[in-house]
Amino acid sequence: MSAGRGAASGAPPGAGPHVIGVDVGGTSIRAARVGPGGQVFQRFESPSPAHDQELMVDALLQVVEEAADAGTGRGDARAVGLGAAGYILQERGVIMEAPNIAWRDVPLRSIVSERTGLTVFLDNDANAAAAGEHLFGVARGVDDFICLTLGTGIGGGIFIDGKVYRGHRGTAAELGHATVDPAGPVCGCGRRGCLEAMASGTALEREAARLAALDPDSMLNGTCGGDLWRLDGETVARAAEAGDGAALEAFEYVSLWLGIGIASFIHIFDPELVVLGGGMSRSGHLLLDSVRRTVAEHGIPCLVRDASVELSSLGGDAGVVGAAAMAWEGIGGPPSNYH
Amino acid sequence: MSAGRGAASGAPPGAGPHVIGVDVGGTSIRAARVGPGGQVFQRFESPSPAHDQELMVDALLQVVEEAADAGTGRGDARAVGLGAAGYILQERGVIMEAPNIAWRDVPLRSIVSERTGLTVFLDNDANAAAAGEHLFGVARGVDDFICLTLGTGIGGGIFIDGKVYRGHRGTAAELGHATVDPAGPVCGCGRRGCLEAMASGTALEREAARLAALDPDSMLNGTCGGDLWRLDGETVARAAEAGDGAALEAFEYVSLWLGIGIASFIHIFDPELVVLGGGMSRSGHLLLDSVRRTVAEHGIPCLVRDASVELSSLGGDAGVVGAAAMAWEGIGGPPSNYH
Repeated sequence: MSAGRGAASGAPPGAGPHVIGVDVGGTSIRAARVGPGGQVFQRFESPSPAHDQELMVDALLQVVEEAADAGTGRGDARAVGLGAAGYILQERGVIMEAPNIAWRDVPLRSIVSERTGLTVFLDNDANAAAAGEHLFGVARGVDDFICLTLGTGIGGGIFIDGKVYRGHRGTAAELGHATVDPAGPVCGCGRRGCLEAMASGTALEREAARLAALDPDSMLNGTCGGDLWRLDGETVARAAEAGDGAALEAFEYVSLWLGIGIASFIHIFDPELVVLGGGMSRSGHLLLDSVRRTVAEHGIPCLVRDASVELSSLGGDAGVVGAAAMAWEGIGGPPSNYH
Repeated sequence: MSAGRGAASGAPPGAGPHVIGVDVGGTSIRAARVGPGGQVFQRFESPSPAHDQELMVDALLQVVEEAADAGTGRGDARAVGLGAAGYILQERGVIMEAPNIAWRDVPLRSIVSERTGLTVFLDNDANAAAAGEHLFGVARGVDDFICLTLGTGIGGGIFIDGKVYRGHRGTAAELGHATVDPAGPVCGCGRRGCLEAMASGTALEREAARLAALDPDSMLNGTCGGDLWRLDGETVARAAEAGDGAALEAFEYVSLWLGIGIASFIHIFDPELVVLGGGMSRSGHLLLDSVRRTVAEHGIPCLVRDASVELSSLGGDAGVVGAAAMAWEGIGGPPSNYH
């Protein structure tokens, strides 16, 4: 599959109403036609030419058009939801910047809307993930919660009174860039000791490499051709499952910092629920007990005792389903007879 | 003046509509009759018998009743606003706990309401301070802002869409207990490295004492009978005004941590404005430039550039005026012909 060229996969096209949910990330652009109950009818994907803004726009348009033309044809899709990694002015439909993609003040919403003729909603990918949890996932029926998407970085989504909280200009909820240790490692954003620098998938890989280098018995030394700096999160998770000490300790490190950050967020927001999503949450059973314990130990007891911490229930489709949830909400909610 | 005994001071009783604003702190209980434009007609005060819950309730009732009976007599006051230091379940009108006061699950709102026959509103003192800034202070016309009250501790108030944000149970906005350095000094809450432990008036005094002890030339050594651990914030501020190096450096320390915390809060909330209130804000000119510089240097540029940081404009009456603002808002806003 060449860059900018969409590839479809998944279940055969479903009939009936759907929206197109698109997860615009630094590695790939993934889209899906998603039904009113969160069902994924069909998936589409393209690599992200992240270094070049124009190529990114082209690749995005191609994936969205392919999805719009699939099934029973264009016009069938009710709306498009774009969940994009980056800093977004949601009301204006503009993506300002992103840590790993060459965006610079791009009016992505109107570009996609003009090309496809569809109603388009654009938001931060972590806000979209939170919308997905609220409409289809573990936060159904919960109106005050926060969602952390744990991946290469850490995204944040905040729901207040049943709605995404976006702040004054639309850039709120950068929970991954709350400072938890100003003397900590440098973050992707250039600052030191952001939660993202301490507790993301990248932090997990860094800690696992550091700990394995100190521990000749760690099975991690036999992976990646012996190059510990090429470790990925899934390898670390598999080693932890197998009882590897360095891998387990790396998960403990990440869990500790996550717990410290989450305790602060509970003090700040008094949410009913904290959802852990993103790719790393699929190894969530390696994190959850330790995160909960740290929140209980590190939080102010009367403030944290009633807030629960849970894993996302949406799995690998959380990105596209979240973007779709945002589109469904944007057009007034899914048709209730399907819900 | 004995404990539990109110003492009135201030301008002669004003005629016309007013509410009673009460600032229930660990050192003193201060009340005022406050008009619809935020004018303070008359002040009342009692020391806080903070070690004993029953005595606190008695002292509070005495101050409120004295204020209610003043002027043209009971019935003249439209409502009572109680801004109390501590963790509060706002909807239930209950104060759960407070770091320096012996509260334990006290239904303060109904106690005061039953005794006085007046409508009573109870909230955290920092939420009340934010309400004061919104109705009468530097945040007039600003609907998305956060307010930090800098005193012995650090309180937080959050305004979203023109209303106090209280969270799921009512305990939100404990911004002073966001962790900014887990290896930092122990906080009043028992945890380490809360913003409050790094940047409150208590932190200012601690740093000034530490720095003066290392600097024989510091004029701080000649104050407080040579006992640096008895330094108070005002002494440090006076020394800083006079150019004392240790005192200036202590203000720099506090400003740095405040700036780091505020940058995180801007990343999280995307507010239009951050207000610095509380007793320490009266030395705010010693903080403001440095706080703003740290926010600009330490924040993500495209996220922090449009948020301003300003000092409270309400001065020493901010506590009672804030509690009064909450009461005015609670009964539907001040009469508009007075506003």
